[in-house]
Amino acid sequence: MTRPEISANRLMARIKRLGEVGALSGGGVCRLALTDEDKQGRDLLVSWMQELGLKVSIDVIGNIWGTREAEQGGPPIMMGSHIDTVATGGLYDGAAGVLVGLEVIDALNAAGIKTVRPVAVAAFTNEEGARFAPDMMGSGVHQGALDLDMMLATVATDGDAVFGEELNRIGYAGPVPAASMTPAAYLELHVEQGPVLEQERIQIGAVTGVQGISWTEYVIEGQSNHAGTTPMSMRHDAGAVAAEIAVEARRIAVDFGPPQVSTVGVFEVSPGLVNVVPQFARITVDLRNTDDTLLIKAEQQLMARAKAAADAEGCTLKTRSLARFAPVAFDETLVAKVEAAAAARQLSVRRMPSGAGHDAQMFAPNCPSAMVFVPSEAGLSHNINEHTEEADLVAGANVLLDVILDLAGESK
Amino acid sequence: MTRPEISANRLMARIKRLGEVGALSGGGVCRLALTDEDKQGRDLLVSWMQELGLKVSIDVIGNIWGTREAEQGGPPIMMGSHIDTVATGGLYDGAAGVLVGLEVIDALNAAGIKTVRPVAVAAFTNEEGARFAPDMMGSGVHQGALDLDMMLATVATDGDAVFGEELNRIGYAGPVPAASMTPAAYLELHVEQGPVLEQERIQIGAVTGVQGISWTEYVIEGQSNHAGTTPMSMRHDAGAVAAEIAVEARRIAVDFGPPQVSTVGVFEVSPGLVNVVPQFARITVDLRNTDDTLLIKAEQQLMARAKAAADAEGCTLKTRSLARFAPVAFDETLVAKVEAAAAARQLSVRRMPSGAGHDAQMFAPNCPSAMVFVPSEAGLSHNINEHTEEADLVAGANVLLDVILDLAGESK
Repeated sequence: MTRPEISANRLMARIKRLGEVGALSGGGVCRLALTDEDKQGRDLLVSWMQELGLKVSIDVIGNIWGTREAEQGGPPIMMGSHIDTVATGGLYDGAAGVLVGLEVIDALNAAGIKTVRPVAVAAFTNEEGARFAPDMMGSGVHQGALDLDMMLATVATDGDAVFGEELNRIGYAGPVPAASMTPAAYLELHVEQGPVLEQERIQIGAVTGVQGISWTEYVIEGQSNHAGTTPMSMRHDAGAVAAEIAVEARRIAVDFGPPQVSTVGVFEVSPGLVNVVPQFARITVDLRNTDDTLLIKAEQQLMARAKAAADAEGCTLKTRSLARFAPVAFDETLVAKVEAAAAARQLSVRRMPSGAGHDAQMFAPNCPSAMVFVPSEAGLSHNINEHTEEADLVAGANVLLDVILDLAGESK
Repeated sequence: MTRPEISANRLMARIKRLGEVGALSGGGVCRLALTDEDKQGRDLLVSWMQELGLKVSIDVIGNIWGTREAEQGGPPIMMGSHIDTVATGGLYDGAAGVLVGLEVIDALNAAGIKTVRPVAVAAFTNEEGARFAPDMMGSGVHQGALDLDMMLATVATDGDAVFGEELNRIGYAGPVPAASMTPAAYLELHVEQGPVLEQERIQIGAVTGVQGISWTEYVIEGQSNHAGTTPMSMRHDAGAVAAEIAVEARRIAVDFGPPQVSTVGVFEVSPGLVNVVPQFARITVDLRNTDDTLLIKAEQQLMARAKAAADAEGCTLKTRSLARFAPVAFDETLVAKVEAAAAARQLSVRRMPSGAGHDAQMFAPNCPSAMVFVPSEAGLSHNINEHTEEADLVAGANVLLDVILDLAGESK
């Protein structure tokens, strides 16, 4: 038996080839879910799966997976990610995970290795949520976390297109029922989409889980007043309250320490004139933590301070939850295997949470799941200049190969 | 000789009549400078001046004043304000000062009083600066603080209209040269445009001066990053820096105490998405104080703290002065006369600075000047719901009458 090895040439050729589908003239790609470009990407993927001898399955929400059969049968060890992108996406977000999966299969084939358990590679529909909300739709339906009919009825954010109709139109409404298969284990390679690995010069991230996300909108109403004639003590300045909440949101994240993060991404005031005290302000706060207890504590502290700030200024405060996902913890044994596989290959590795959502989190409640992160240049993500070095991708592919082979077992 | 008395009926009839010119359907008025509505208001004013037997003068920038001649001749004791409004203005801002001036003349006429010095009432062009910047344009040119040709060349903020052409079009480019007359004294009644008199249940404000104004734009540039994947320590959050500057601006005003005020009226972040760390932020800070030394100190403290905040976050900070006016002090003797006249009529009175700019500040460097404030309901200003009670207006008119008579002197 030959020892299987990742081929950088094969891997990069597929990344380059898929990157041509929906390529933007200035660089980057646009393969929004269920568009013609998504269909072309899917067709290419299916043709590659067939070339590699995989059994192709397509389910009712358009998820595609190719299975490398094994004597023993049963649920496969699954690798997966997505090939849809945001409107100005890069070549690696999602595609890297799917194509590294194909390369793992190619390497096993080339080495003539048979596994005890089947190995599969999957591309899940509409992970980005850029054209149809919510995100992680395909993996969510696949693992029973989202309702199929509700998802099929979703209307596009950019017009009147209905998800189910678009899925039919591109020919990817498949026969496999929703929530009908749980893999034996799930592994996903993904670009970090953040700066940590690059800044710390580490090649592999052994992802311990996905941060819980809490999005809250704070709307403050006060009173519009003349900036010159209204003493500070007689003001009801909605903008001042919003600024205080923003500063407090940051203070909480700094006080809690990593992995707590906090972001005020939206900050609007009205009427928005130099010499008028703002009557209205709207901000959003994005809080994330891997520990739900801490995340709840951060939410509660900020809410209390926001109320105090609004009360002190004689303003009203209304808050609205825009999104709330509890943190997801990956399987400790699997995370340790990723770490060990990296170390065995002399690759630098660190444990880290994922700050962004991924398909893997839909599998985590149902089967042992984990992720492998590779560095993102300058942390750029959802950007046409998103980039990951070839050497880093190959390193990640080798780690994935080793863990998959360990989990699937070699037939002697 | 009859003792002169203000007639509430005459005064309110003129206020109501002028309020019909440019009346908005939902209440309030729009008489932007040099529009057809401004012309109609001017025509009405001139006809009233003529009815009252005043000698009407119009200067090169369209200022109108009517002079009640006196045996002695020489420069008049002048009352004045403006009749232009913002786009959604009220009936009193500016108009009250001009029409109370006319009523003072009417009362002198009705009582058959002759004065030693002439008395004049003026309406200055484009005090608001809403259609053509800067504000206080007419009084500025009248008193030599602004250059006539530069003002005539000003282009409207709402299109291509040129100030000088518009002035000709409405027929109010008069023959009197700029900066050709300095009154013996200048008195202006104006609505407070703030909440202080109403909240303290005081009828008359004896205005001590106009606050110095400092407008600064703060532009912060950082780096756009993913709100989930970027640890707090690796961020360059332009929005967070802006929020800190806003909080510091407020802190400085509270620490300094009255009359220091500070307003962040504009707060913009970009890209303005819930889950993206802002790359860009722009805020404006409006600082005002009656003491220029304190105003400079406030400016410097805020600038230092803003720089420190930007440096700490690894962001760049660019600042730009949008406007800077030094404080203006009114004539102590005249302020005391206003106070004494109010007290003599059993009216409650307090000294106070003006937080807004007024035509009177253009006269203050050249002749004894002062102002009389009357209460603004709820402090509303530049608002169609702006209102001052009839009793308060009449009280202010009586104070103005008494001081004018004192200054002009009765002919025995």
